[in-house]
Amino acid sequence: MKVAVDAMGGDFAPQSVIEGVLQARSEFTDLDFILYGDQAQIEPLIDDMTRLTIVHTTEKIASDDEPVRAIRRKKQASMVLAAQAVKDGQADALFSLGNTGALLAAGLFIIGRVKGIDRPGLMPTLPSINSDQGFNMLDVGANAEAKPEHLHQYGLMGNFYAKDVRGIENPRIALLNNGTEATKGDELHKATYQLLADDPDLNFVGNVEANDLLKGVADVVVTDGFTGNATLKAIEGTATIVMSQVKHAIMDAGVKEKIGGLLLKGSVGGIREKFDTSIYGGAVLLGLKAPVIKAHGAADARTVYYTVKQIHAMLANQTVQKVIDYFSDQAAQKNSN
Amino acid sequence: MKVAVDAMGGDFAPQSVIEGVLQARSEFTDLDFILYGDQAQIEPLIDDMTRLTIVHTTEKIASDDEPVRAIRRKKQASMVLAAQAVKDGQADALFSLGNTGALLAAGLFIIGRVKGIDRPGLMPTLPSINSDQGFNMLDVGANAEAKPEHLHQYGLMGNFYAKDVRGIENPRIALLNNGTEATKGDELHKATYQLLADDPDLNFVGNVEANDLLKGVADVVVTDGFTGNATLKAIEGTATIVMSQVKHAIMDAGVKEKIGGLLLKGSVGGIREKFDTSIYGGAVLLGLKAPVIKAHGAADARTVYYTVKQIHAMLANQTVQKVIDYFSDQAAQKNSN
Repeated sequence: MKVAVDAMGGDFAPQSVIEGVLQARSEFTDLDFILYGDQAQIEPLIDDMTRLTIVHTTEKIASDDEPVRAIRRKKQASMVLAAQAVKDGQADALFSLGNTGALLAAGLFIIGRVKGIDRPGLMPTLPSINSDQGFNMLDVGANAEAKPEHLHQYGLMGNFYAKDVRGIENPRIALLNNGTEATKGDELHKATYQLLADDPDLNFVGNVEANDLLKGVADVVVTDGFTGNATLKAIEGTATIVMSQVKHAIMDAGVKEKIGGLLLKGSVGGIREKFDTSIYGGAVLLGLKAPVIKAHGAADARTVYYTVKQIHAMLANQTVQKVIDYFSDQAAQKNSN
Repeated sequence: MKVAVDAMGGDFAPQSVIEGVLQARSEFTDLDFILYGDQAQIEPLIDDMTRLTIVHTTEKIASDDEPVRAIRRKKQASMVLAAQAVKDGQADALFSLGNTGALLAAGLFIIGRVKGIDRPGLMPTLPSINSDQGFNMLDVGANAEAKPEHLHQYGLMGNFYAKDVRGIENPRIALLNNGTEATKGDELHKATYQLLADDPDLNFVGNVEANDLLKGVADVVVTDGFTGNATLKAIEGTATIVMSQVKHAIMDAGVKEKIGGLLLKGSVGGIREKFDTSIYGGAVLLGLKAPVIKAHGAADARTVYYTVKQIHAMLANQTVQKVIDYFSDQAAQKNSN
């Protein structure tokens, strides 16, 4: 199993990327890596080239490049070459810390969609306070104009992922809505509710509201890309701001300063771990013919390691193949009816 | 100026409602109040009936009543009678802590929309870390199926409110979107962006993302009711959960327990004040012929007091009349063209 790595994406590339890949290489001995990027920068970071190949290129996609244009014009960019390798069958998965929009475009236009999937969805894993499992939410922004069928497909794909990668036997699938009753929502969400509820392949637990997400009320939360994007950002922004207020409050507490510092290093600092999602890896673009994974631009070597672990789980379980087979079976059943 | 008060709405009714009204009565000497509810429960809470009238009724709308049906069938409910008083010109504003959906329905079907406003929007005031002003966001759920014109109208109405009630000279109006660039979003948000940007009556500052909301990047944030509802709930849910984690972490810190307790009472506890929105009053249903205000069901007397203060500001500034005049002028201009 071979992973095509965009070694030049992210704020600390290629250093954090290479360090994380080297850590993962020791553990996952059935994985090979092709590193796309500037050989002069990459090579000095590596002592031992076992199961590693470097494909040299100096072109790269910037974080502020217009995604589709960048993919089309920068044919030699590290991300584009890595995507092309997956398309050509030289690699089995694509991993990048770079421009999210460009990675989506590379996934769509170079690697291509699974037959039967209309719109791939971007799916991060978020933390929940009641378990070490967190939960998945999709789509968080790959697709701004959603139809009920797209959301139904997100539920099905998220279900395969939660089983394979997170080891949940019977994942609870929920719909993010503006109330818990079955009749809630706009036309899109009412229609999606019916599709999810009527699907015997899903353990659909109904609607969930955004204030309950972090409580772990579901394993896979289905949402349209516009709402999902706003909800994800609201959660991230609020958690960051509240924690920064807490730190200031503890440090500003005057005489208690020293103990405040201990608290911040100890139990209060530990909250960050509770909300640390790097152990879940990156966000998956589900619905493509191969695993395409995006880690945060600011990701460190540890996050890169966990993201490779995630990719390994998807490859070892053939999660994408299951999605391909499922939708191909569905199409066959439809045709035979 | 007279406020029709649903004295029976909310978790601690009528006590918290009456206490808050009595506090507000002392300060706002140009306000009269009509209290709708059970005389036997209300009367013992009041010593002095100056500028107060009680209209007795025992019927009330429960928090789990189906809103539209409740409004239509429970003709003698305290909320319905209060709305009817506003409709009949006996009172100038409606205030309730009860069932939000029913209050929206009472506003729409009894008090009625401002001519030219298609869909009223529900607008709370949220906190921001950079100012004591907070910011307004609408719609957060009155209307699940939004069109660009509705969102444009939210911007215009929010603008009047921010000027009158919050005293902001030239409110910064922003659109909640999935990116800051002008071209971001689905068709609804792209079209709304243009309407807001082209309106010379608005100080439109462009798109904002949900992770920046609490930073105070805008005074009025325009959003569709579905996204706004999820974003508001994500912010509330995340803040609550993170603060509860912080409290547990501090209290679980063992030997530091006592100091932890002091911290919680002191500086860390003070964060709650930073995020305390009760000083801004309740959520306004903008677009109706009179101020209709909803305070949290769990609101205490202090919140009720601030909500009456907010209603006073809207009445004294004739905010709703400004909205009526503005949209009537717009219609006249359209007709003369």
